[in-house]
Amino acid sequence: MALSKSPYRGTRDFFPKDMRGRNYIFQKMAEASERFAYEPYDGPMLEEVNLYRAKSGDELINDQIYSFTDRGEREVAIRPEMTPTVARMVAQIHREVAKPIRWYAIPNLMRYEKPQRGRLREFWQYNADIFGAGQNGEVEILQLAVELMKSYGATGEHFEILVNDRRFVDFVFEGLIGLEPGPTKKLYKLVDAKNKMPLEKFAAEVRILTEDEGKAKVFEAFVNLGSMADVRRFVDEIFSNVSVSDMHHFKSSAPVSVSGNIAPLYKIFEMIEAAGISEYVRFDPSIVRGLDYYTGLVFEIFDKHPENRRAIAGGGAYANLLQIFDETPLEGVGMGLGEVPLTDFLVTHKLMPDFSKPELDYLVGAFVPEGEATATEIATKLRVHGSKVELFFGDAKPKKFFSYSEKKNFKYLVFVTESEIKLRNVAMRAETTVTLQELTEGKR
Amino acid sequence: MALSKSPYRGTRDFFPKDMRGRNYIFQKMAEASERFAYEPYDGPMLEEVNLYRAKSGDELINDQIYSFTDRGEREVAIRPEMTPTVARMVAQIHREVAKPIRWYAIPNLMRYEKPQRGRLREFWQYNADIFGAGQNGEVEILQLAVELMKSYGATGEHFEILVNDRRFVDFVFEGLIGLEPGPTKKLYKLVDAKNKMPLEKFAAEVRILTEDEGKAKVFEAFVNLGSMADVRRFVDEIFSNVSVSDMHHFKSSAPVSVSGNIAPLYKIFEMIEAAGISEYVRFDPSIVRGLDYYTGLVFEIFDKHPENRRAIAGGGAYANLLQIFDETPLEGVGMGLGEVPLTDFLVTHKLMPDFSKPELDYLVGAFVPEGEATATEIATKLRVHGSKVELFFGDAKPKKFFSYSEKKNFKYLVFVTESEIKLRNVAMRAETTVTLQELTEGKR
Repeated sequence: MALSKSPYRGTRDFFPKDMRGRNYIFQKMAEASERFAYEPYDGPMLEEVNLYRAKSGDELINDQIYSFTDRGEREVAIRPEMTPTVARMVAQIHREVAKPIRWYAIPNLMRYEKPQRGRLREFWQYNADIFGAGQNGEVEILQLAVELMKSYGATGEHFEILVNDRRFVDFVFEGLIGLEPGPTKKLYKLVDAKNKMPLEKFAAEVRILTEDEGKAKVFEAFVNLGSMADVRRFVDEIFSNVSVSDMHHFKSSAPVSVSGNIAPLYKIFEMIEAAGISEYVRFDPSIVRGLDYYTGLVFEIFDKHPENRRAIAGGGAYANLLQIFDETPLEGVGMGLGEVPLTDFLVTHKLMPDFSKPELDYLVGAFVPEGEATATEIATKLRVHGSKVELFFGDAKPKKFFSYSEKKNFKYLVFVTESEIKLRNVAMRAETTVTLQELTEGKR
Repeated sequence: MALSKSPYRGTRDFFPKDMRGRNYIFQKMAEASERFAYEPYDGPMLEEVNLYRAKSGDELINDQIYSFTDRGEREVAIRPEMTPTVARMVAQIHREVAKPIRWYAIPNLMRYEKPQRGRLREFWQYNADIFGAGQNGEVEILQLAVELMKSYGATGEHFEILVNDRRFVDFVFEGLIGLEPGPTKKLYKLVDAKNKMPLEKFAAEVRILTEDEGKAKVFEAFVNLGSMADVRRFVDEIFSNVSVSDMHHFKSSAPVSVSGNIAPLYKIFEMIEAAGISEYVRFDPSIVRGLDYYTGLVFEIFDKHPENRRAIAGGGAYANLLQIFDETPLEGVGMGLGEVPLTDFLVTHKLMPDFSKPELDYLVGAFVPEGEATATEIATKLRVHGSKVELFFGDAKPKKFFSYSEKKNFKYLVFVTESEIKLRNVAMRAETTVTLQELTEGKR
């Protein structure tokens, strides 16, 4: 029986046109990162499962991870995300290096998912993190995200960054509504899933969690905050009715305060203004990010196209990345951007360049058998200067040579005839006779 | 219990200095390939195990492969080599595209090996293949190999390419010695392992396989051929004693002939001469490559350093890559070069550049709190021109700022003082006062 020619379900074959597109996307990621002085890193494609047990949500481990036992009885997994790896690596070196640490990577990851638009089993994810920089780091990551999107030709018409702050969310959930951390986390997940359920169901679930009609109303006021102006009005109204010390009554632990829970959100929007990226950023209370470890800024980059209204990337700030390694706390801010939703975004907005043909400098061939050695010599010498040169093998028939030349984007065609060497400039449709020396040394 | 900070056995963490080195190595691979008009491709990191069963040797499947059963009961493996994937991909498109097809990739692969010098469980391997180009393809792959090695600064003093031809080996093993294809394959493996066993053991094994003292002598003469001059003498001597038609008597299948089995080796050395790479290439009868699918040129790139006398890369020509897919035959020539032995080679010969510090354009900081906004503006504007700019956060103390600047290679330091903006050219140790406009627009 003949073997299947298809790739494994949920993975892709990258033919040259696809690979040039992928290289373009990765190149822009590297360039934007390096403009912000982020340094490249990578880790292994396999990690021990324990690392994910300690760091990630249960869903990832139970349903989505590719794990197996190796020949030495170790339980290992193909990396489903990069954060545990970067935490493991930073834990090795954070004591010796100057802060902040700015790192980026573009690893291939695997998750056992049902393949669908924007989601595959194997994909690449851009990761950028900054450690030990406080709120400056939060804003820099947003700036980097904006610059990266702009480098693909995207503008504020194509995307927006929706921002929230876990400290502010805690102020509302714990301080105002008076939830304990446990129900607060459940409320995060509920907000996260808001757009995936009917409004009535959402309202009912909220009432179950808050156990109080008045508290449910506070929650509803919160989820309807559409801008920072709304946030300011909301906060001012609260403080005209209740003092902060009153709020403390609602809860037993993790005290909330104006300086610790509201000021950072105000500060970040001031800094966003100063960094010149306001036009791309909007407050959105529904961005909370399900994962437990976020403790400050949380954000998602959204496609504004009505038919592709989805998150392309997400990230946030965490107070302590290194906890699971028993290391001294190190705060950080990170973002992850998948190449699959990004490509969908670029294609949707017609921002993806055409990579169907390779860009080459020369096609070199011989129209007579005696010219073959000269053609080889020309190709070899042109490559010395870094030119991209394809040698047309054997004794080329002119018709075949020219028809082949149209399959790729060559700048020049060179063909050796019985008596001379011809150089054709493809764009200018101009043909001249040249000597071997003019051709191969003229470019110096 | 705290988690381990080490990577999984046989894999590596690439910290920025390591990653810059890896990027350098990969960049040269891409550039050399593109100078020869090879196009990039990639496949999935997982393939179905069946693909390797059909294509690879038993050793790979039984002992070295990372395989497991997925949640959908499919038997899958992390790719241990790229050839089966490239065969699968080419099988999809070879009917529609112009020949020759020139492709390259730099995939990460995994093999369950005992980690040792030059060998790890996870590694990257450069793969270049040309399909449908006959002996022109054989020479082009060798040329590409030479150019790639030269692009790292290596010369004929550092490496050599040892070349043999399976057709010639078959002429000796099947035509002269009269072995059937089965014992011939065993003899390939014996030659492959020659340098790993005592000479007496090798001689004894040969006698068992050839079953004849006279034939063993022919074989010994073959393995002692040290150059193409030796080959010519060996062949001439044979033909002065025996006619080709006589040789056919020795065997039952796969007839050998001068035109089919000796001429190609002579031809390839002529073409090597014409391509100007003779100084890097040497005939070596002990290069046969264990794998079954090679049918023409076989070669290995060897480190000439006496303490690192090992193969860095290997490859060869195969008559039919697509057999397992029931497709029409397509011949090809390929090479694989592992980044682990290549890095050892470059380090051994002191050819690896220093990547310990990142190369950046500007470090920008404010020596007074009122200067922070200006510093942010400068950094943002400098990045517009593509400069790599690190913003020193907060109110920088001069001493801290300058001492930090030495941890990385900055071209310029910019610092905002109470009244002015200073620009320091690090290499020239020159400091000037500049306006924001001069600094951020002067570069256009």
